[in-house]
Amino acid sequence: MARSRVPTRGAGRPRRSRGASAGFRLDDVAAAVGGRIHGDAATRLNGVAPLESAGPRDLSWVADERRSREAASSRAGALLSSSAVLAAGKPCVVVASPPLALAIWLESLHPAPAGRAGVARGAHVRPGARIAPSASVEAGATVEAGARIGARTRLRAGAFVGERAEIGEDCVLGPGSAVMAGCRIGHRCVLQPGAVVGSDGFGYVWDGARHRKIPQVGTVRVEDDVEIGANAAIDRATLGETIIGRGTKIDNLVQVGHNVVVGEHSILCGQAGVGGSSRLGRGVTLAGQVGISDHVLIGDHAILTGQAGIARRGRVRAGAVVSGMPALPHREFLKRAALVGRLEAVFERLAALEAALAKIGKGR
Amino acid sequence: MARSRVPTRGAGRPRRSRGASAGFRLDDVAAAVGGRIHGDAATRLNGVAPLESAGPRDLSWVADERRSREAASSRAGALLSSSAVLAAGKPCVVVASPPLALAIWLESLHPAPAGRAGVARGAHVRPGARIAPSASVEAGATVEAGARIGARTRLRAGAFVGERAEIGEDCVLGPGSAVMAGCRIGHRCVLQPGAVVGSDGFGYVWDGARHRKIPQVGTVRVEDDVEIGANAAIDRATLGETIIGRGTKIDNLVQVGHNVVVGEHSILCGQAGVGGSSRLGRGVTLAGQVGISDHVLIGDHAILTGQAGIARRGRVRAGAVVSGMPALPHREFLKRAALVGRLEAVFERLAALEAALAKIGKGR
Amino acid sequence: MARSRVPTRGAGRPRRSRGASAGFRLDDVAAAVGGRIHGDAATRLNGVAPLESAGPRDLSWVADERRSREAASSRAGALLSSSAVLAAGKPCVVVASPPLALAIWLESLHPAPAGRAGVARGAHVRPGARIAPSASVEAGATVEAGARIGARTRLRAGAFVGERAEIGEDCVLGPGSAVMAGCRIGHRCVLQPGAVVGSDGFGYVWDGARHRKIPQVGTVRVEDDVEIGANAAIDRATLGETIIGRGTKIDNLVQVGHNVVVGEHSILCGQAGVGGSSRLGRGVTLAGQVGISDHVLIGDHAILTGQAGIARRGRVRAGAVVSGMPALPHREFLKRAALVGRLEAVFERLAALEAALAKIGKGR
Repeated sequence: MARSRVPTRGAGRPRRSRGASAGFRLDDVAAAVGGRIHGDAATRLNGVAPLESAGPRDLSWVADERRSREAASSRAGALLSSSAVLAAGKPCVVVASPPLALAIWLESLHPAPAGRAGVARGAHVRPGARIAPSASVEAGATVEAGARIGARTRLRAGAFVGERAEIGEDCVLGPGSAVMAGCRIGHRCVLQPGAVVGSDGFGYVWDGARHRKIPQVGTVRVEDDVEIGANAAIDRATLGETIIGRGTKIDNLVQVGHNVVVGEHSILCGQAGVGGSSRLGRGVTLAGQVGISDHVLIGDHAILTGQAGIARRGRVRAGAVVSGMPALPHREFLKRAALVGRLEAVFERLAALEAALAKIGKGR
Repeated sequence: MARSRVPTRGAGRPRRSRGASAGFRLDDVAAAVGGRIHGDAATRLNGVAPLESAGPRDLSWVADERRSREAASSRAGALLSSSAVLAAGKPCVVVASPPLALAIWLESLHPAPAGRAGVARGAHVRPGARIAPSASVEAGATVEAGARIGARTRLRAGAFVGERAEIGEDCVLGPGSAVMAGCRIGHRCVLQPGAVVGSDGFGYVWDGARHRKIPQVGTVRVEDDVEIGANAAIDRATLGETIIGRGTKIDNLVQVGHNVVVGEHSILCGQAGVGGSSRLGRGVTLAGQVGISDHVLIGDHAILTGQAGIARRGRVRAGAVVSGMPALPHREFLKRAALVGRLEAVFERLAALEAALAKIGKGR
Repeated sequence: MARSRVPTRGAGRPRRSRGASAGFRLDDVAAAVGGRIHGDAATRLNGVAPLESAGPRDLSWVADERRSREAASSRAGALLSSSAVLAAGKPCVVVASPPLALAIWLESLHPAPAGRAGVARGAHVRPGARIAPSASVEAGATVEAGARIGARTRLRAGAFVGERAEIGEDCVLGPGSAVMAGCRIGHRCVLQPGAVVGSDGFGYVWDGARHRKIPQVGTVRVEDDVEIGANAAIDRATLGETIIGRGTKIDNLVQVGHNVVVGEHSILCGQAGVGGSSRLGRGVTLAGQVGISDHVLIGDHAILTGQAGIARRGRVRAGAVVSGMPALPHREFLKRAALVGRLEAVFERLAALEAALAKIGKGR
């Protein structure tokens, strides 16, 4: 893995001077993340990299003893570490959580690029849209009639905001993302490229000759601090609202059906799918490719491991960890897999028993 | 779930006066859906909501006895009901199918918004495209040379219609959807945002040094009354056509490979995938995340439950219900899951038998 | 399946004269694909079609004995065949690999359409973008500041190239595809419609109150000759690079997480997903809907069959073929499935043994 030389993702603002060229000092890091320095506070660095690829001018991090050996042998110039011992003599900043400190330091090095305030030439803004003066509507973005765009929110090229939709402050709508009519997005939300909020729910009723569409006239409410991944799709409700709770993070290519309610601070990993009218509690984790059918209830802080499947009207209790399809408590899932792995021996033992009994039978 | 106060999704047309403000009467409903009124025909309502969230000015619905108790305790002002008994004394319209009546009534309350006829400034229409005068090509939409757009069809911002593609009448192509060169879409079709029709099929042949692409020179034919979900992808054929039969509904994030034929009135739920050259009959149901490999045959009216998988060249007979991977008849799938759940006891019983036999052996 | 009458997908160039109207001769085919002619070299043809739908003016192909009967009964006018015997008396071109010859001949019949060189009116190109004079930036496409577009590369409507991203020569970026800031695409790459390269990786750390985003400041490097399917998503690295190796082909709706490395000439079929920091070797095949968790290692030329799942930190050795979740060697997977299918008999045999033992016990 190549080292990261403080790349700056932003457009429309110059590279920060303490970036690739000027670098930073270990005491800059300590001040930003709130940690204690061990070693030379003036250690000069100019990048951030994981242990295996860090060089002498890179800051790296070590969080637990499993990686202390790697830390010792790494060429990193300094470390974020959960203890001075783990840092193995390298200059370090000791913090409670190195990953959190890493996040804070990277935020500090790479502030999210702001758009250029205003409606660019080449943007399509319909009469009756209300756009905060500090918001940025880039060329090729569309804002329909009656929509509202909050302060400092940025609409990239090809982003679409439908009729009467409302986008809060400090949001980013990536290229080709869409918020359909009447849907509401809170503050500090991010839609990755191609994310769709407010596609029609998948509701039909057979009328004797064809599937007749049940008009999907509800909306989607996405609360504050939600992130929605690339090419994910969140359907509008049939009636009422589909709700994505505050602080929930949704990965790429996730599907959320109509009238679903996802609680706060949940995590939906890549390609997970949630069927209509299901309800997920707070702090739920769906690992990759988890499939949840319709009308399912998932309790707070439950964890569904990769590819787990929950059938229609299924229930997962709060705090449970479940796996497989049909889903089982994770330990039971592992136990059954192990037992199935010993099935060949079962047949051998049965045959041996049958032979022994036959012998006894003959012997009498 | 919040009540739905007759929101109107449409752009470019005023809210209908019998909407949120004026409301409607029970006899309006009965006339629209063709049902018999029990109770006060003049009951005034102004919204539609499910039983659990309906208030005294909402119309709700009850279809079966399981929900009759909820109907009785609901605050709904009136009901669509399959019998006067189920309505538990509330004013009601009795119909054969309350969900169908609901669909009809919602259609009546929320007619699909029409676009503004014509090619908007900011739309990209190439010379040689033929666009019906009543069609709507919105700003940011693209129509390539030789393409045809039928009457009253609406292309939202960012929709793309490739060279010589043909779109029928009364279609909606959502923001960011794409119909690639030469593909044909029937009448009354809907492409949700980001849906792609006519991406290249995934066909390569190893030439000794690299995967060489087999040019995908066929097209896709989407028949009338088909709906394709957000960010779904339907590949063009290598040669000939990929076909989506009349009335079939495809949910979000579904993948349909090259040269697939899907019969009429089938249902492909979210994140299902169909490999190249597979054929699905009429009225087939693929539940969420079903995976069908290449060259599979699925008979008419077969149902594949969530996450079921069919291997290459597999067959599912007409009317079958199958589950799991490898897929089994659903009852067999459930039976096997139950038997696996009793495996621990198998080992205990084996051990007991072996001990008993050993004892007998010693006893002799 | 309808015959393919040499459709031409391209825009901006006339149909080739040897196309549908003029047709071609068998010796044209032999010259292009480098094969030996059996039968009349002057046989006139005007299309290419599979055996079952070919007519007397179509070229078809037969690769193995399983299909020799179909070849004999086909109405095809001529064949690409791996031997004169298989062609059953029809005019044919004998080649080592008929599928490869098919690919070569289709390429020859249907050369990829070039765009019209230059930046179209209606394209959004920011100051500081560098675009090769022979590149084509179509109306509705966007190129941000500092980006570079290589010679003959074509950006379709709605394609997006972010700040400082670099696109090589002879690439096609389909409608609505996006290459985000700082990412690099090699030569001869294709992004199907809606494909996203460089969405943010899914990285958060709990800060005690919320999931705090770990800024994803790395990039994606896509090497030469890579194809990425419709609505697929390749995340940028947290630090460093996500890498897609040379010649790798990625199907629709595939998800590739941050910091993943995919080796050269690998195949990722539809809806497969690869979790963060996993590494795939060269020539790996992921069948449809395969799920790979985080930090997994997949050896060279390994094959994962449809819907297989690999847990976090899992390993698949080079050349292995694995199936199921949890994944097993394919033969073991099949064996276990068969053994589970015989479980009912296990319970019967156990009961019989127990009854027999009980009888013996009583008998004593």
